[in-house]
Amino acid sequence: MASKMIPDIVIGRLPIYLRALNFMAAADQEITSSHELAERLGISSAQIRKDLSHFGEFGKQGTGYHISHLQEQLRRILKVDRGWEGALIGMGDLGHALARYNGFRDPGFEITLAFDNDPQTIGQVVGGLTIQDVATLPEVVKQQSVQIAMLTVTAQAAQSVAELCIKGGIKAILNYAPITLSVPDHVHVQYIDPVAHLQRMTYYL
Amino acid sequence: MASKMIPDIVIGRLPIYLRALNFMAAADQEITSSHELAERLGISSAQIRKDLSHFGEFGKQGTGYHISHLQEQLRRILKVDRGWEGALIGMGDLGHALARYNGFRDPGFEITLAFDNDPQTIGQVVGGLTIQDVATLPEVVKQQSVQIAMLTVTAQAAQSVAELCIKGGIKAILNYAPITLSVPDHVHVQYIDPVAHLQRMTYYL
Repeated sequence: MASKMIPDIVIGRLPIYLRALNFMAAADQEITSSHELAERLGISSAQIRKDLSHFGEFGKQGTGYHISHLQEQLRRILKVDRGWEGALIGMGDLGHALARYNGFRDPGFEITLAFDNDPQTIGQVVGGLTIQDVATLPEVVKQQSVQIAMLTVTAQAAQSVAELCIKGGIKAILNYAPITLSVPDHVHVQYIDPVAHLQRMTYYL
Repeated sequence: MASKMIPDIVIGRLPIYLRALNFMAAADQEITSSHELAERLGISSAQIRKDLSHFGEFGKQGTGYHISHLQEQLRRILKVDRGWEGALIGMGDLGHALARYNGFRDPGFEITLAFDNDPQTIGQVVGGLTIQDVATLPEVVKQQSVQIAMLTVTAQAAQSVAELCIKGGIKAILNYAPITLSVPDHVHVQYIDPVAHLQRMTYYL
Protein backbone atom coordinates (compact mmCIF):
# COMPACT_ATOMS: atom_id res chain seq x y z
CA MET A 1 0.00 0.00 0.00
CA ALA A 2 2.82 2.42 -0.87
CA SER A 3 1.48 5.96 -1.23
CA LYS A 4 3.14 6.30 -4.63
CA MET A 5 0.67 3.87 -6.11
CA ILE A 6 -2.48 5.82 -5.37
CA PRO A 7 -3.42 8.42 -8.01
CA ASP A 8 -3.39 12.02 -6.78
CA ILE A 9 -6.93 12.46 -8.08
CA VAL A 10 -8.07 9.85 -5.54
CA ILE A 11 -6.20 11.65 -2.76
CA GLY A 12 -7.91 14.85 -3.88
CA ARG A 13 -11.35 13.31 -3.31
CA LEU A 14 -10.63 12.04 0.22
CA PRO A 15 -10.96 15.52 1.81
CA ILE A 16 -14.35 15.85 0.09
CA TYR A 17 -15.49 12.55 1.61
CA LEU A 18 -14.17 13.60 5.01
CA ARG A 19 -15.93 16.96 4.76
CA ALA A 20 -19.26 15.25 4.04
CA LEU A 21 -18.74 12.82 6.93
CA ASN A 22 -17.91 15.70 9.29
CA PHE A 23 -21.12 17.42 8.23
CA MET A 24 -23.16 14.25 8.84
CA ALA A 25 -21.48 13.68 12.21
CA ALA A 26 -22.26 17.25 13.25
CA ALA A 27 -25.92 16.38 12.62
CA ASP A 28 -25.55 13.32 14.91
CA GLN A 29 -25.80 10.85 12.04
CA GLU A 30 -23.94 7.59 12.80
CA ILE A 31 -24.14 5.47 9.64
CA THR A 32 -23.89 6.30 5.95
CA SER A 33 -23.51 4.40 2.68
CA SER A 34 -21.61 4.90 -0.55
CA HIS A 35 -25.03 5.60 -2.11
CA GLU A 36 -25.83 8.39 0.31
CA LEU A 37 -22.37 9.90 -0.14
CA ALA A 38 -22.78 9.59 -3.91
CA GLU A 39 -26.10 11.41 -3.81
CA ARG A 40 -24.66 14.16 -1.65
CA LEU A 41 -21.40 14.63 -3.56
CA GLY A 42 -22.36 13.98 -7.17
CA ILE A 43 -19.70 11.25 -7.40
CA SER A 44 -20.80 7.70 -8.30
CA SER A 45 -21.09 5.21 -5.46
CA ALA A 46 -18.85 2.81 -7.39
CA GLN A 47 -16.15 5.50 -7.57
CA ILE A 48 -16.42 6.17 -3.85
CA ARG A 49 -16.13 2.48 -2.99
CA LYS A 50 -13.19 2.10 -5.36
CA ASP A 51 -11.41 5.15 -3.92
CA LEU A 52 -11.82 3.91 -0.35
CA SER A 53 -10.81 0.35 -1.26
CA HIS A 54 -7.27 1.62 -1.95
CA PHE A 55 -6.89 1.98 1.80
CA GLY A 56 -8.64 -1.11 3.15
CA GLU A 57 -12.10 -2.34 4.02
CA PHE A 58 -14.22 0.30 5.73
CA GLY A 59 -17.82 -0.76 5.24
CA LYS A 60 -19.80 -3.97 5.28
CA GLN A 61 -22.13 -5.00 2.48
CA GLY A 62 -25.62 -3.98 3.52
CA THR A 63 -24.67 -2.16 6.72
CA GLY A 64 -22.79 0.83 5.25
CA TYR A 65 -20.05 2.85 6.91
CA HIS A 66 -19.78 3.80 10.55
CA ILE A 67 -19.23 7.53 10.16
CA SER A 68 -16.96 7.99 13.17
CA HIS A 69 -14.76 5.08 12.12
CA LEU A 70 -14.48 6.27 8.53
CA GLN A 71 -13.73 9.83 9.71
CA GLU A 72 -10.97 8.49 11.91
CA GLN A 73 -9.46 6.43 9.10
CA LEU A 74 -9.58 9.27 6.57
CA ARG A 75 -8.00 11.65 9.09
CA ARG A 76 -5.24 9.10 9.63
CA ILE A 77 -4.69 8.57 5.88
CA LEU A 78 -4.62 12.32 5.19
CA LYS A 79 -2.40 12.77 8.27
CA VAL A 80 -4.74 15.32 9.81
CA ASP A 81 -5.10 13.23 12.96
CA ARG A 82 -2.16 15.33 14.18
CA GLY A 83 -1.70 19.11 14.41
CA TRP A 84 -0.14 21.04 11.51
CA GLU A 85 1.27 24.52 11.87
CA GLY A 86 1.14 26.92 8.97
CA ALA A 87 2.73 30.24 8.04
CA LEU A 88 0.65 32.94 6.37
CA ILE A 89 2.49 35.35 4.09
CA GLY A 90 0.88 38.55 2.85
CA MET A 91 -1.35 40.31 5.35
CA GLY A 92 -3.74 42.22 3.10
CA ASP A 93 -7.52 41.74 3.22
CA LEU A 94 -7.34 38.04 2.38
CA GLY A 95 -4.48 37.40 4.81
CA HIS A 96 -6.53 39.05 7.54
CA ALA A 97 -9.56 36.92 6.66
CA LEU A 98 -7.52 33.70 6.77
CA ALA A 99 -5.80 34.65 10.03
CA ARG A 100 -9.24 34.94 11.61
CA TYR A 101 -10.83 31.95 9.85
CA ASN A 102 -11.99 29.42 12.42
CA GLY A 103 -12.44 26.62 9.87
CA PHE A 104 -8.80 25.50 10.09
CA ARG A 105 -8.69 24.64 13.76
CA ASP A 106 -10.99 21.63 13.77
CA PRO A 107 -9.35 19.69 10.93
CA GLY A 108 -5.97 20.08 12.61
CA PHE A 109 -4.45 23.19 11.03
CA GLU A 110 -3.29 26.23 12.92
CA ILE A 111 -1.72 29.36 11.51
CA THR A 112 1.09 30.12 13.94
CA LEU A 113 3.14 32.61 11.92
CA ALA A 114 2.22 35.67 9.86
CA PHE A 115 4.55 37.67 7.61
CA ASP A 116 4.45 40.76 5.44
CA ASN A 117 7.00 43.03 3.76
CA ASP A 118 5.30 46.33 4.55
CA PRO A 119 6.99 48.22 7.43
CA GLN A 120 3.57 49.68 8.34
CA THR A 121 2.09 46.20 8.67
CA ILE A 122 4.99 44.43 10.43
CA GLY A 123 4.42 44.40 14.18
CA GLN A 124 0.63 44.59 13.95
CA VAL A 125 -1.36 41.83 15.66
CA VAL A 126 -4.06 40.00 13.66
CA GLY A 127 -6.02 37.01 14.93
CA GLY A 128 -3.58 36.74 17.83
CA LEU A 129 -0.51 36.67 15.54
CA THR A 130 2.20 39.32 15.47
CA ILE A 131 3.07 40.05 11.86
CA GLN A 132 6.79 39.49 11.23
CA ASP A 133 9.14 40.76 8.54
CA VAL A 134 9.11 38.37 5.57
CA ALA A 135 12.90 38.76 5.33
CA THR A 136 13.15 36.70 8.53
CA LEU A 137 10.86 33.96 7.17
CA PRO A 138 13.41 31.24 6.26
CA GLU A 139 15.01 31.40 9.69
CA VAL A 140 11.78 31.59 11.71
CA VAL A 141 10.03 28.84 9.74
CA LYS A 142 13.06 26.55 10.05
CA GLN A 143 13.33 27.17 13.79
CA GLN A 144 9.71 26.23 14.33
CA SER A 145 9.76 23.33 11.82
CA VAL A 146 6.73 24.70 9.99
CA GLN A 147 6.12 22.77 6.75
CA ILE A 148 3.03 24.50 5.36
CA ALA A 149 2.70 28.03 3.98
CA MET A 150 -0.24 29.98 2.60
CA LEU A 151 0.65 32.71 0.13
CA THR A 152 -1.69 35.68 -0.07
CA VAL A 153 0.80 37.99 -1.75
CA THR A 154 0.65 39.62 -5.20
CA ALA A 155 1.35 37.65 -8.37
CA GLN A 156 4.52 39.70 -8.79
CA ALA A 157 5.87 38.75 -5.36
CA ALA A 158 4.70 35.13 -5.23
CA GLN A 159 7.67 33.35 -6.84
CA SER A 160 10.31 35.08 -4.69
CA VAL A 161 8.24 34.55 -1.53
CA ALA A 162 7.83 30.87 -2.46
CA GLU A 163 11.62 30.63 -2.72
CA LEU A 164 12.00 32.11 0.77
CA CYS A 165 9.52 29.52 2.01
CA ILE A 166 11.40 26.64 0.41
CA LYS A 167 14.67 27.96 1.84
CA GLY A 168 13.03 27.71 5.26
CA GLY A 169 12.00 24.09 4.69
CA ILE A 170 8.37 24.59 3.66
CA LYS A 171 7.08 21.49 1.84
CA ALA A 172 3.49 22.44 1.02
CA ILE A 173 2.28 25.77 -0.36
CA LEU A 174 -1.32 26.86 -0.69
CA ASN A 175 -1.00 29.65 -3.25
CA TYR A 176 -3.71 32.30 -3.48
CA ALA A 177 -1.59 34.50 -5.77
CA PRO A 178 -2.84 34.26 -9.38
CA ILE A 179 0.34 32.76 -10.83
CA THR A 180 1.80 29.31 -11.32
CA LEU A 181 4.84 28.74 -9.08
CA SER A 182 8.03 27.02 -10.10
CA VAL A 183 9.14 24.76 -7.25
CA PRO A 184 11.34 21.68 -6.75
CA ASP A 185 9.72 18.24 -7.03
CA HIS A 186 9.62 17.66 -3.26
CA VAL A 187 7.44 20.75 -2.70
CA HIS A 188 3.68 20.44 -3.16
CA VAL A 189 1.60 23.35 -4.39
CA GLN A 190 -2.16 23.78 -4.49
CA TYR A 191 -3.80 26.78 -6.10
CA ILE A 192 -6.79 28.89 -5.16
CA ASP A 193 -7.69 31.45 -7.81
CA PRO A 194 -11.32 32.59 -7.90
CA VAL A 195 -10.90 34.11 -11.37
CA ALA A 196 -9.77 30.78 -12.86
CA HIS A 197 -12.80 29.08 -11.26
CA LEU A 198 -15.17 31.76 -12.56
CA GLN A 199 -13.73 31.53 -16.09
CA ARG A 200 -14.19 27.78 -16.05
CA MET A 201 -17.91 28.40 -15.49
CA THR A 202 -18.52 31.35 -17.84
CA TYR A 203 -17.44 29.07 -20.70
CA TYR A 204 -20.73 27.22 -20.18
CA LEU A 205 -23.00 30.27 -19.76
CA MET B 1 -16.81 22.48 -32.58
CA ALA B 2 -19.79 22.01 -30.25
CA SER B 3 -18.81 22.88 -26.69
CA LYS B 4 -20.24 19.59 -25.44
CA MET B 5 -17.41 17.72 -27.10
CA ILE B 6 -14.57 19.36 -25.19
CA PRO B 7 -13.75 17.71 -21.86
CA ASP B 8 -14.27 19.92 -18.82
CA ILE B 9 -10.69 19.20 -17.72
CA VAL B 10 -9.49 20.98 -20.89
CA ILE B 11 -11.77 23.94 -20.16
CA GLY B 12 -10.31 24.02 -16.64
CA ARG B 13 -6.78 24.47 -18.02
CA LEU B 14 -7.65 27.38 -20.34
CA PRO B 15 -7.83 29.94 -17.49
CA ILE B 16 -4.38 28.77 -16.38
CA TYR B 17 -2.99 29.38 -19.88
CA LEU B 18 -4.69 32.77 -20.04
CA ARG B 19 -3.29 33.69 -16.63
CA ALA B 20 0.25 32.89 -17.76
CA LEU B 21 -0.23 34.87 -21.00
CA ASN B 22 -1.55 37.86 -19.05
CA PHE B 23 1.52 37.71 -16.85
CA MET B 24 3.84 37.58 -19.88
CA ALA B 25 1.96 40.41 -21.58
CA ALA B 26 2.27 42.54 -18.44
CA ALA B 27 6.05 42.08 -18.78
CA ASP B 28 5.83 43.32 -22.42
CA GLN B 29 6.54 39.90 -23.88
CA GLU B 30 4.99 39.46 -27.34
CA ILE B 31 5.66 35.86 -28.40
CA THR B 32 5.64 32.58 -26.50
CA SER B 33 5.72 28.87 -27.31
CA SER B 34 4.07 25.74 -26.03
CA HIS B 35 7.50 24.83 -24.61
CA GLU B 36 7.80 28.05 -22.62
CA LEU B 37 4.23 27.68 -21.33
CA ALA B 38 4.99 24.05 -20.45
CA GLU B 39 8.08 25.05 -18.49
CA ARG B 40 6.18 27.76 -16.65
CA LEU B 41 3.05 25.73 -15.88
CA GLY B 42 4.36 22.22 -15.32
CA ILE B 43 2.04 20.89 -18.05
CA SER B 44 3.58 19.10 -21.06
CA SER B 45 3.91 21.11 -24.27
CA ALA B 46 2.10 18.32 -26.15
CA GLN B 47 -0.84 18.64 -23.75
CA ILE B 48 -0.95 22.42 -24.21
CA ARG B 49 -0.91 22.11 -28.01
CA LYS B 50 -3.60 19.42 -27.87
CA ASP B 51 -5.80 21.49 -25.55
CA LEU B 52 -5.56 24.56 -27.78
CA SER B 53 -6.11 22.55 -30.97
CA HIS B 54 -9.69 21.88 -29.83
CA PHE B 55 -10.42 25.51 -30.68
CA GLY B 56 -8.45 26.06 -33.87
CA GLU B 57 -4.95 26.88 -35.02
CA PHE B 58 -3.29 29.55 -32.88
CA GLY B 59 0.43 29.17 -33.46
CA LYS B 60 2.71 28.46 -36.38
CA GLN B 61 5.33 25.73 -36.32
CA GLY B 62 8.61 27.40 -35.42
CA THR B 63 7.24 30.89 -34.71
CA GLY B 64 5.19 30.16 -31.60
CA TYR B 65 2.13 32.03 -30.37
CA HIS B 66 1.46 35.75 -30.59
CA ILE B 67 0.55 36.42 -26.98
CA SER B 68 -2.01 39.16 -27.62
CA HIS B 69 -3.79 37.06 -30.24
CA LEU B 70 -3.90 33.98 -28.03
CA GLN B 71 -5.12 36.06 -25.06
CA GLU B 72 -7.90 37.47 -27.22
CA GLN B 73 -8.93 34.02 -28.44
CA LEU B 74 -8.90 32.47 -24.97
CA ARG B 75 -10.94 35.38 -23.60
CA ARG B 76 -13.45 34.84 -26.41
CA ILE B 77 -13.62 31.07 -25.82
CA LEU B 78 -14.04 31.52 -22.05
CA LYS B 79 -16.54 34.34 -22.72
CA VAL B 80 -14.63 36.80 -20.58
CA ASP B 81 -14.31 39.21 -23.50
CA ARG B 82 -17.53 40.70 -22.12
CA GLY B 83 -18.41 41.96 -18.63
CA TRP B 84 -19.92 39.62 -16.02
CA GLU B 85 -21.72 40.82 -12.94
CA GLY B 86 -21.62 38.79 -9.77
CA ALA B 87 -23.47 38.70 -6.46
CA LEU B 88 -21.57 38.13 -3.24
CA ILE B 89 -23.46 36.47 -0.40
CA GLY B 90 -22.10 36.42 3.15
CA MET B 91 -20.28 39.56 4.24
CA GLY B 92 -17.95 38.23 6.91
CA ASP B 93 -14.16 38.63 6.71
CA LEU B 94 -13.87 36.71 3.44
CA GLY B 95 -16.84 38.52 1.88
CA HIS B 96 -15.19 41.82 2.79
CA ALA B 97 -11.88 40.70 1.26
CA LEU B 98 -13.58 39.62 -1.99
CA ALA B 99 -15.64 42.83 -2.20
CA ARG B 100 -12.40 44.78 -2.14
CA TYR B 101 -10.35 42.40 -4.33
CA ASN B 102 -9.15 44.21 -7.43
CA GLY B 103 -8.19 41.03 -9.28
CA PHE B 104 -11.72 40.49 -10.68
CA ARG B 105 -12.05 43.71 -12.63
CA ASP B 106 -9.45 43.10 -15.31
CA PRO B 107 -10.61 39.63 -16.44
CA GLY B 108 -14.16 40.99 -16.84
CA PHE B 109 -15.86 40.26 -13.51
CA GLU B 110 -17.46 42.82 -11.29
CA ILE B 111 -19.24 42.23 -8.02
CA THR B 112 -22.30 44.44 -8.24
CA LEU B 113 -24.44 43.03 -5.43
CA ALA B 114 -23.70 42.07 -1.81
CA PHE B 115 -26.04 40.28 0.57
CA ASP B 116 -26.09 39.14 4.18
CA ASN B 117 -28.73 37.93 6.64
CA ASP B 118 -27.46 39.84 9.68
CA PRO B 119 -29.57 42.94 10.47
CA GLN B 120 -26.40 44.62 11.85
CA THR B 121 -24.59 44.08 8.54
CA ILE B 122 -27.43 44.91 6.12
CA GLY B 123 -27.15 48.51 4.99
CA GLN B 124 -23.39 48.77 5.55
CA VAL B 125 -21.26 49.80 2.57
CA VAL B 126 -18.22 47.65 1.64
CA GLY B 127 -16.07 48.21 -1.42
CA GLY B 128 -18.71 50.61 -2.76
CA LEU B 129 -21.54 48.06 -2.37
CA THR B 130 -24.51 48.49 -0.04
CA ILE B 131 -25.17 45.17 1.67
CA GLN B 132 -28.75 44.02 1.05
CA ASP B 133 -31.01 41.57 2.88
CA VAL B 134 -30.47 38.03 1.52
CA ALA B 135 -34.25 37.52 1.67
CA THR B 136 -34.55 39.92 -1.28
CA LEU B 137 -31.87 38.08 -3.30
CA PRO B 138 -34.04 36.14 -5.79
CA GLU B 139 -35.93 39.28 -6.80
CA VAL B 140 -32.90 41.60 -7.00
CA VAL B 141 -30.72 39.12 -8.87
CA LYS B 142 -33.50 38.39 -11.37
CA GLN B 143 -34.13 42.12 -11.94
CA GLN B 144 -30.48 42.74 -12.72
CA SER B 145 -30.03 39.50 -14.72
CA VAL B 146 -27.02 38.50 -12.62
CA GLN B 147 -25.95 34.91 -13.43
CA ILE B 148 -22.95 34.45 -11.12
CA ALA B 149 -22.87 34.18 -7.34
CA MET B 150 -20.07 33.78 -4.82
CA LEU B 151 -21.04 32.13 -1.55
CA THR B 152 -19.03 33.07 1.51
CA VAL B 153 -21.61 31.90 4.02
CA THR B 154 -21.36 29.12 6.62
CA ALA B 155 -21.58 25.45 5.64
CA GLN B 156 -24.90 25.30 7.48
CA ALA B 157 -26.43 28.14 5.43
CA ALA B 158 -24.89 27.33 2.05
CA GLN B 159 -27.52 24.94 0.62
CA SER B 160 -30.48 27.21 1.40
CA VAL B 161 -28.63 30.28 0.10
CA ALA B 162 -27.76 28.37 -3.10
CA GLU B 163 -31.46 27.63 -3.52
CA LEU B 164 -32.29 31.34 -3.21
CA CYS B 165 -29.65 32.03 -5.87
CA ILE B 166 -31.09 29.45 -8.25
CA LYS B 167 -34.58 30.85 -7.67
CA GLY B 168 -33.21 34.21 -8.84
CA GLY B 169 -31.75 32.70 -12.01
CA ILE B 170 -28.12 32.27 -10.96
CA LYS B 171 -26.36 29.75 -13.23
CA ALA B 172 -22.83 29.67 -11.80
CA ILE B 173 -21.88 29.46 -8.14
CA LEU B 174 -18.40 29.85 -6.71
CA ASN B 175 -18.81 28.21 -3.32
CA TYR B 176 -16.39 29.05 -0.50
CA ALA B 177 -18.54 27.29 2.10
CA PRO B 178 -17.00 23.95 3.06
CA ILE B 179 -19.86 21.79 1.85
CA THR B 180 -20.90 20.15 -1.40
CA LEU B 181 -24.03 21.77 -2.85
CA SER B 182 -26.92 19.93 -4.44
CA VAL B 183 -28.01 21.88 -7.54
CA PRO B 184 -29.93 21.20 -10.80
CA ASP B 185 -27.93 20.12 -13.85
CA HIS B 186 -28.05 23.52 -15.52
CA VAL B 187 -26.27 25.21 -12.59
CA HIS B 188 -22.46 25.09 -12.45
CA VAL B 189 -20.61 24.99 -9.16
CA GLN B 190 -16.93 25.43 -8.44
CA TYR B 191 -15.51 24.95 -4.96
CA ILE B 192 -12.85 26.79 -3.00
CA ASP B 193 -12.01 25.13 0.30
CA PRO B 194 -8.53 25.77 1.69
CA VAL B 195 -8.85 22.87 4.15
CA ALA B 196 -9.48 20.36 1.34
CA HIS B 197 -6.42 21.70 -0.50
CA LEU B 198 -4.27 21.50 2.63
CA GLN B 199 -5.39 17.94 3.37
CA ARG B 200 -4.53 16.92 -0.16
CA MET B 201 -0.95 18.03 0.56
CA THR B 202 -0.50 16.74 4.11
CA TYR B 203 -1.10 13.25 2.73
CA TYR B 204 2.33 13.53 1.10
CA LEU B 205 4.21 15.07 4.04
